[in-house]
Amino acid sequence: MRSKLTLVGAGPGDGELITLKGIRALRQADVVLYDDLANHSLLEFAPERALKMYVGKRAGKVSFSQDEINALIVRLAQEHGHLVRLKGGDSYVFGRGYEECAYVRQYGIAYEVVPGVSSSIAVPASQGIPVTSRGVSESFWVITGTTRTGELSDDLRLAVQSKATVVVLMGLNKVNEICTMYCKAGRGHVPMAVIQNGTRADEHCVVGQVWNMPQLIAEQGVGAPAVLVIGDVVALHPSYLAECLHNVSVAY
Amino acid sequence: MRSKLTLVGAGPGDGELITLKGIRALRQADVVLYDDLANHSLLEFAPERALKMYVGKRAGKVSFSQDEINALIVRLAQEHGHLVRLKGGDSYVFGRGYEECAYVRQYGIAYEVVPGVSSSIAVPASQGIPVTSRGVSESFWVITGTTRTGELSDDLRLAVQSKATVVVLMGLNKVNEICTMYCKAGRGHVPMAVIQNGTRADEHCVVGQVWNMPQLIAEQGVGAPAVLVIGDVVALHPSYLAECLHNVSVAY
Repeated sequence: MRSKLTLVGAGPGDGELITLKGIRALRQADVVLYDDLANHSLLEFAPERALKMYVGKRAGKVSFSQDEINALIVRLAQEHGHLVRLKGGDSYVFGRGYEECAYVRQYGIAYEVVPGVSSSIAVPASQGIPVTSRGVSESFWVITGTTRTGELSDDLRLAVQSKATVVVLMGLNKVNEICTMYCKAGRGHVPMAVIQNGTRADEHCVVGQVWNMPQLIAEQGVGAPAVLVIGDVVALHPSYLAECLHNVSVAY
Repeated sequence: MRSKLTLVGAGPGDGELITLKGIRALRQADVVLYDDLANHSLLEFAPERALKMYVGKRAGKVSFSQDEINALIVRLAQEHGHLVRLKGGDSYVFGRGYEECAYVRQYGIAYEVVPGVSSSIAVPASQGIPVTSRGVSESFWVITGTTRTGELSDDLRLAVQSKATVVVLMGLNKVNEICTMYCKAGRGHVPMAVIQNGTRADEHCVVGQVWNMPQLIAEQGVGAPAVLVIGDVVALHPSYLAECLHNVSVAY
């Protein structure tokens, strides 16, 4: 029996946003280890006999540490053969996918990476917000809101000054700090959206500007997982203008 | 008959990197307008009776202007019904997808965006380079190499100073300028990869550092389409160390 790890990006939530290649890997799986953010209906592509195990890593739930997951991958791949690691979005975008590959390599286990549709691009798109648009934005910058140290990423300090569309993943609990940084840099007027459960049936989007986003989020009760999008492209959202006028009229 | 536009991201090149949702749209297409970078084997998912039309936009080939494409979309959707616009990668990452949606909206034509696997993430991944990795990079910044004016994007000037993984799409003909900017900023030692035809059978990757990349590209004859990746994550490429040692030994 040949052991193998395949990392499969499950896409941002909508179960139809997995790739053909990802489905083929699932069909050939002996074991599937899956996370919270992967749409669980995708498990149906795996054979019935395959072992399916939840190793979700989300605040407030029983979960495994990354070291435990690494060890599990090696043991289960050695015992069963082909292990598919199903992760939300793309495994190489803050997914710790590289660490899992590097770990199994030490044990001589083969690995393959099947990329996925990243939430960083697809979640804004599902709200009609393009991360780039000719004449509006020539780049987008995707930054984690959850660093190893728990502090805001230094990259955000530079991002605040840039004209890039800034997309923050796993950053909802840092949103007040992030908005304060923008305001202190004189950029509180920049359009901003916060999108919870993007591409799922219960998707929820709040649109406004940086200065009033903390208040809007508090009022509307947005929860994780959420994607923050900051930049002029957010003004292309169909309800941006109406929202801004409403908020300004409420404020004055 | 109801007219509709569906933008479908075809993924980076490998025909299996399209999503289920993209395939479903193709199966329901009356017309498909496709570009160079979309894998042409995907046309087989469209019904035989569907009109398939190449509107590629690549240097040196007969092609349509964006205005002509916009007009074509409207006319063909009105005449035939469901038009699928099949684009390489993701339609909202430098794909002018937003412009096409905004244009058809003026004519009361419905539209939908099916996101795709972006080359910006998947092409580095196909070479074993994660755009982010814990302890190495907390963000990635995707920048176009081809702006409206033909000049380098101002965003690159800031990117040169950042610790983000910088990914430049459509930037091969600007690679010398970009490398010079890094060198002038004292960052010529940063690891860099240039990947041509990523995820396709004829994929070709050159790994080195910024300072010697122009020379390596000239020696090895890399052509478009190519993705530039600049940042410490490139050092995770399996042959990075060997390449660097080789190049240094050649230089001295």
